[in-house]
Amino acid sequence: MPSSSTTLLDRFMRQHRSRVDAALDRWLPKVEIQPSVLHEAMRYAVLDGGKRLRPMLVYAAGEALRAEDRVLDGPACAVELVHAYSLIHDDLPCMDNDELRRGKPTCHIAFGEATALLAGDSLQTLAFQILARDSHMTTNSSARLQMIGALAQAVGSRGMAGGQAIDLAAVGQDLNLLQLENMHIRKTGALIRASVTLGALSALEPDDAALYCLDHYAKCVGLAFQIRDDILDVEGDTETLGKSQGADKARNKPTYPSLLGVGASRAKAMELYQEAEASLSQLDEHAEILRELARYTVERIR
Amino acid sequence: MPSSSTTLLDRFMRQHRSRVDAALDRWLPKVEIQPSVLHEAMRYAVLDGGKRLRPMLVYAAGEALRAEDRVLDGPACAVELVHAYSLIHDDLPCMDNDELRRGKPTCHIAFGEATALLAGDSLQTLAFQILARDSHMTTNSSARLQMIGALAQAVGSRGMAGGQAIDLAAVGQDLNLLQLENMHIRKTGALIRASVTLGALSALEPDDAALYCLDHYAKCVGLAFQIRDDILDVEGDTETLGKSQGADKARNKPTYPSLLGVGASRAKAMELYQEAEASLSQLDEHAEILRELARYTVERIR
Repeated sequence: MPSSSTTLLDRFMRQHRSRVDAALDRWLPKVEIQPSVLHEAMRYAVLDGGKRLRPMLVYAAGEALRAEDRVLDGPACAVELVHAYSLIHDDLPCMDNDELRRGKPTCHIAFGEATALLAGDSLQTLAFQILARDSHMTTNSSARLQMIGALAQAVGSRGMAGGQAIDLAAVGQDLNLLQLENMHIRKTGALIRASVTLGALSALEPDDAALYCLDHYAKCVGLAFQIRDDILDVEGDTETLGKSQGADKARNKPTYPSLLGVGASRAKAMELYQEAEASLSQLDEHAEILRELARYTVERIR
Repeated sequence: MPSSSTTLLDRFMRQHRSRVDAALDRWLPKVEIQPSVLHEAMRYAVLDGGKRLRPMLVYAAGEALRAEDRVLDGPACAVELVHAYSLIHDDLPCMDNDELRRGKPTCHIAFGEATALLAGDSLQTLAFQILARDSHMTTNSSARLQMIGALAQAVGSRGMAGGQAIDLAAVGQDLNLLQLENMHIRKTGALIRASVTLGALSALEPDDAALYCLDHYAKCVGLAFQIRDDILDVEGDTETLGKSQGADKARNKPTYPSLLGVGASRAKAMELYQEAEASLSQLDEHAEILRELARYTVERIR
């Protein structure tokens, strides 16, 4: 990777990570507000130095279509809050029963199961509240309704939550590649796609062709992201990952490396990266960060 | 209660129960759609012959301001889906650990904890999806955003979910009347209030005075409903209730009867009913059903 573009992406990610973290801090109820423990748990699960990949995609897609950062803060928060909610519920004993997340005890280990459950529930709600009420977002109410509809579709029973259900049912099962892909398209792909959509819908007058290209880009990035995740589960180390390495294998979960081998999984991720990049060809230099983010998803080490 | 008005309310509730049940059936994904088990669990928890009090309040408030039933179906579904989601999560082992709900095994008993968790999550999401996408609702996009914001505020960490957190923390504690009221205003009151608000916002041009009166009505009805619930937990029987009688007492939960005694609790509910009725005085004969619903909440036997 040329060092100039690394620097470009690094700067973008640093700036926008601060930006979204500040916005999340503003939206999350303060610990002083009752019920304190619930609000503490919500803040614990969200304000923890995550990668913020989904917010980055919101900002990058929005900027590619000339939206200002100010109108993108709300959607960026919304997708990250949904992501954080899904991690809390995913980690619960009745689901993956994980004790470590982003290098810290998971929410239910720190606050107990009941509070973790309610914190996840409340983070989902807050995401929709922001999209409905943030005063800095686009003033086009119909575009905002489209965003809410797109986010809901992405995270509901036919999207992210449905992917979780398929994932749970798949433990110990033999899935073929198509079934594995179907699961990931829902479980992680749908929210990544929605992130790009919400960014694009924040632009003043996004044309249909641009929306279509960006959506194709997001589909490729979503799947590439998951393949990289599976590879890291095999090759990463627990400390860098901030979660238990080898967890998928230990649970006998089907993964890309278990079906294709690590080499072919790597090649598939690279192909998807190239397809993502190609789908940006109609866009101008403002899409540069999107290109870099696609590369980042397949090269990241955590 | 004069028999004529009983008949009026009975007919209204029968008609609108069918109406909202049909709308819920249309919105809930069919069991044939993957993941089947998740969709089965969602339908199991929702399509079960509940009282549908919250949808009734949506229809009645909307009709009081001349909104057509067609535009009220979406909001009516949304509030019932949120209610059903909260019951599923409330019944989980880490929360109230209930095995019986509306006369049937609770969702996690029937489908397992993980599926119940995801079903609750997905029902919440579906509620917002409907408010964003239902094509029959008001075409006023800004009113729809207001509805989404109002529902989110009512069910999030400062509303319903916050009430649950306070409720959990209160088990075995001595609450005073003010603290008990604060808990119930959030736990059940907020969603009841949002139901009336969503109905009112569905009207073509709801004026602020009418919105204010209806909101005061809803606050009174919400609290009266909870007091009646507490009385029924003491005096009802498990078969009629469809849930375990005496459950609050068994858990050492503070209730109105435990603080005030049954007689004074009854009197307080009646006062609230009268206050609710009085706050409708500015409205005309179209508010008759709201009056009857207020009476129903304090006289119901389940």
